[in-house]
Amino acid sequence: MEHPIPPHTVSLPPQRRPSIANPPTPLGLQGTHNRTYQRPNHLQIGNRWREIQGANDWEGLLDPLDECLRTELIRYGMFAQAAYDAFDFDMWSQYCGSCRYSKENLFKEVDLHHTGYTVTMYIYATADVEVPYLLKRSEREDAWSSKSNWIGYVAVCTDEGEIKRLGRRDIMIAWRGSVTGLEWAANLEFQLTPCGLTDESKLGLSTHIKVEAGFLSLYTSAKEDSRFNKVSAQSYLVKEIKDLVEKYKDQDELSITVCGHSLGSALATLSAYDLAESDLNQTEVGGKMVSIPITVFSFAGPRVGNSAFKERLEAVGVKVLRVVNTHDRVPRVPGLSAFEGWLWTYSHVGVELEINDEDSQHLDQDKASIANHHNFEVYLHLIDGYGRWDVKPPSRDPLLVNKGTGFLKEDKYVPEAWFQPKHKGLVYSVRENRYYQPDRAIEDIPVPPKPETVAAAKAFTKSLTLKKSLEREREKEKGSQPPSAEAAPLENLVHRINAF
Amino acid sequence: MEHPIPPHTVSLPPQRRPSIANPPTPLGLQGTHNRTYQRPNHLQIGNRWREIQGANDWEGLLDPLDECLRTELIRYGMFAQAAYDAFDFDMWSQYCGSCRYSKENLFKEVDLHHTGYTVTMYIYATADVEVPYLLKRSEREDAWSSKSNWIGYVAVCTDEGEIKRLGRRDIMIAWRGSVTGLEWAANLEFQLTPCGLTDESKLGLSTHIKVEAGFLSLYTSAKEDSRFNKVSAQSYLVKEIKDLVEKYKDQDELSITVCGHSLGSALATLSAYDLAESDLNQTEVGGKMVSIPITVFSFAGPRVGNSAFKERLEAVGVKVLRVVNTHDRVPRVPGLSAFEGWLWTYSHVGVELEINDEDSQHLDQDKASIANHHNFEVYLHLIDGYGRWDVKPPSRDPLLVNKGTGFLKEDKYVPEAWFQPKHKGLVYSVRENRYYQPDRAIEDIPVPPKPETVAAAKAFTKSLTLKKSLEREREKEKGSQPPSAEAAPLENLVHRINAF
Repeated sequence: MEHPIPPHTVSLPPQRRPSIANPPTPLGLQGTHNRTYQRPNHLQIGNRWREIQGANDWEGLLDPLDECLRTELIRYGMFAQAAYDAFDFDMWSQYCGSCRYSKENLFKEVDLHHTGYTVTMYIYATADVEVPYLLKRSEREDAWSSKSNWIGYVAVCTDEGEIKRLGRRDIMIAWRGSVTGLEWAANLEFQLTPCGLTDESKLGLSTHIKVEAGFLSLYTSAKEDSRFNKVSAQSYLVKEIKDLVEKYKDQDELSITVCGHSLGSALATLSAYDLAESDLNQTEVGGKMVSIPITVFSFAGPRVGNSAFKERLEAVGVKVLRVVNTHDRVPRVPGLSAFEGWLWTYSHVGVELEINDEDSQHLDQDKASIANHHNFEVYLHLIDGYGRWDVKPPSRDPLLVNKGTGFLKEDKYVPEAWFQPKHKGLVYSVRENRYYQPDRAIEDIPVPPKPETVAAAKAFTKSLTLKKSLEREREKEKGSQPPSAEAAPLENLVHRINAF
Repeated sequence: MEHPIPPHTVSLPPQRRPSIANPPTPLGLQGTHNRTYQRPNHLQIGNRWREIQGANDWEGLLDPLDECLRTELIRYGMFAQAAYDAFDFDMWSQYCGSCRYSKENLFKEVDLHHTGYTVTMYIYATADVEVPYLLKRSEREDAWSSKSNWIGYVAVCTDEGEIKRLGRRDIMIAWRGSVTGLEWAANLEFQLTPCGLTDESKLGLSTHIKVEAGFLSLYTSAKEDSRFNKVSAQSYLVKEIKDLVEKYKDQDELSITVCGHSLGSALATLSAYDLAESDLNQTEVGGKMVSIPITVFSFAGPRVGNSAFKERLEAVGVKVLRVVNTHDRVPRVPGLSAFEGWLWTYSHVGVELEINDEDSQHLDQDKASIANHHNFEVYLHLIDGYGRWDVKPPSRDPLLVNKGTGFLKEDKYVPEAWFQPKHKGLVYSVRENRYYQPDRAIEDIPVPPKPETVAAAKAFTKSLTLKKSLEREREKEKGSQPPSAEAAPLENLVHRINAF
C-alpha cells in the first residue's frame, strides 16, 4: 500500500453485521485454521468410472482407500445428507414431514448447486399402520399431509463438464434416513416378508426371497385417499427412472447410483434391487442391448433381506458398497426374524468398507454413544481422510461432526449440535410487535403430483407387473426349472423353531 | 382494485423468502389470531407518576392491578428481560459473558428502540472466588475477559414525548439475572455479611445491617489486574448516576428506577439501597434540596439482607415492589444463614404483588417445574393480563412464554424453548466451503472503560467513603446516639444457636 492508514484511523465497514467476506475466526481446529475446503469434485473420474462404481467389486480400491472412490463416497454422501438437512421435522410446522424447499430450490439451499446435478423428482412415501414411527407427522390441524413423508429425490447430472469428468451421465437417487432417532432400529419388529418384487417362479423358487416388512411397506405402500401417495414410492421411482433412461440413453453412457444413510440405506438397497429386477436398466441403444450399471453407496445400513435376496441382488448385477463404522450397531440389525413359527436369518449384501471412529484424532471417545457412532457426519468425517487415512487434504471441515452431535474434542471450540434454525422458524414482526411462524414461500409448498402423472405411474407399474406375469406364463409353458444350485443351500438357513 | 387479477395468474413476489409484510400464519392461540400487540407505552402516566412509582406504597393499586402500573411493570420488565436476551452465554464464543451488542446497538437489536430511552453505560461485575457460578466464562484462550461479566446497564429517557407521558425524566438501571439455571439459588452458601455500604455508627448501630455475601461480592468486587473491573459494579454505577443527575436535574423532574429478575432483583435492591444511602438522589435544584424518588421493580427476587437492612432501606426511602409467583421457590431463599456460630434470618423488603401461574388458561400445569415457575417470561405473561386479570387486551403474545420453556399448552402450536440463534452463531461461507464463527462487528466488541473514566469512578467512590468517614467523625464528636427504637427489636431476631 502506498499510504498505509494508521490503525486507529481505519474507518469502520459500512455494514455492521459481520459479512462473509471478513476473515473468519479460527475455530481452534489444529491444522485447519483458515483452510478453504476442496469440493469433492476436483478429481478426474474419467474412464475409471466403471471401476469406481464397483464393476470389479471395488477390488484393490478399499485398503488403502482409492482417492477417487473416497471423493465419490463423499460426493454421494452429501446428496444423501441433503435429504436430512432439508427435511422439515418440526412437529409444530404445518409442513412437518415435507422438504422445506421445492425441488428447484433444494440444491441452492443446501449448497449443492455446484454439483452439476438437477433434481428431477421428489419421492413421497407412506406406510402401513405397523411402522408409524418411520414417518414424521405435523401436530397441526392444517397439516399439508397426514399420510405422507418426503423420503428422497431423483437427480440427474446435467452439467456437460461434470458429465465429462465423471465419464458418463449419472442418474442419482438419494433416500432420506429416519429423523426420529434410533428408536426405529430398536422398535422395528423385524419380520421377513415375501418381497413380491420378483417373479420367483421363473427362477423356480417358491417364496424364498424375503425382505424386512417395514422397509418394504415404506417402499411399496400407496393410499388412494392420500394426496401425495395415490401411488407408492416405488411407482414414483420406477416411472421416473424409465423416463430418464429413455430421455438420455442415446446421448451419453448412463449410470444409476442409489445412496442413503441408515433407513435410507435400506431403501437404497431395496429400490436398486427393484430397478434391476424390473429390467429398468436394460435398454436398447443403436440396436444393441445395453445394461446400465446400478450402484448402491450404503452408509450405516441395516440388513434388508434374507440370503436369497442377497443372492438374487448379486445375480441381477447390483453393486453395493456398504460403509460401516465398527461400533455402529445399526448395521448389525436385524439378525434373526421370527414369523409364523419360523426363524429367518438376514444377510448383508455387497462389499463392506469398514471405518472406525477410534481412528480420528478429532473425536472424543469419552463422548461416544450409540447415536454418535451412527451419525452420518461422523461417517463422512472418517471417509473424508480423518482416521485411517489421515494424510490427504480433506474436503470437509471436522466442525461438521458437531452438526448434530457433541463428538468433537472440546479443544475444537465447536458448539454441540449446532445445526438449528433461528428461533425454530419463528420470525419477529416489528410492525405487529410479535413473533409468528411465516408461511412458506409459495414455491416451496409441497405440490402433489398431477392426476396425469399419477395415472402414468400407475399404468407403468401395472405394465411391469403384467410383463412379469407374461414371463411367468411363458416360463410355465417351458416347464419350471429346479431351484438353482446356489439357491438350494439357502434352505438350510431356515430353521423350524419348535419353541414358537 | 379496478382490474382484479384472477388468482391463478398472480405473479409471485420477487423475493422468495417469506417477508414480514406477508400475512402471518396464525399460531393457534385462541383469541389472539393475527392480533397486533400494543406496546406497553400507550397509557398516560402523567401526574400519577409518583403514585405509580410507589410514593404511597402502591396502596390500592394492586388488587385489582392498576392498569398504568401493569403496563409500567411490563415496560420495566422488558428492560430487564433485554439483559438476558442480549447476553452471550455461548461458552465457545470468544465473548462469552459479554453483551452481544454495543450500548449504541442494544435497543435496536432487542427491539426496545421505541422506548424513548438511551443506554448511557454498561455495568461489568466480577466476584470473589466463592461465587464463581454467578459468572459465565468463555472456554476459549482468546477470551475477551476471564474475570468480568456484563451484568446490567443504565439508560435514561431522552425522548421528549415520552418524558411528557411519564411525567418526569426517568433514569433506569437494569440488572441481568443468572443464566446458569437455578444452581446459584441452590448452591449459594447464603451467608449474611456486614454490608459496609452504610456508616452504621451514625445510626448508633454496630454491625446490624447485613446482606447476602454473594450478592455483595458481585456488587462491590474489583480486580486491579482485570480489564473491565478495575472498579466494581458499584463504582461504575454510582459515578454514572451522579453524572446523570447532575446533567438533567435542572431540566426535568427526575426518577430513578431499578429493575431486575432473580439474581438481578437482588442486585437491584442492593444497588438502590446503596444509591440512597450515599445520598446520590439528594440534589440541589434552584437553591432547594430535592429528593429524587428511587423505585425497585423486583421480579422473582430472593431475599437480600436481614431485618436491619429492610428497616434501613425503608428509612432511606427506597420503594420496592416485589412481584412473586406463588409457586416460585427463589423468593423463598435464603431463609436462614449460619455464620460463625450465629444464625441470622433474612427479611423480604417492600410490597409484594402476588401472581399465580395456575390462573393462566394458556399454561399447562402438567409441565410446571421449578424453572418454569421462576421463568421471567412467565412472570411477564401473568402481569400482562393473563391469569388473574384476564380481561384487558394484552401487550405481549402468550407465545413468548415458550421462549425458554415448554410451559404453554400444546394446543398453542408453539415450539418449546424456541429462542435460539441460527446454527449457534456459525455462518456458512460459500467461497470457503465451510462454516465459521464470524468475528463480532467491531463496534460490538466490548471495550473496557478509559483510564480517565476508571480514575474518576475511583475518585468518586473514595470521596463517598471519605464523606461517610467525615460524617462519622462529626457524629462521634456529638456523642453517639443509642440504637433507634425501631432497630432495637431486630436484635431479637438474632439467635445464638448452641448447636453450632
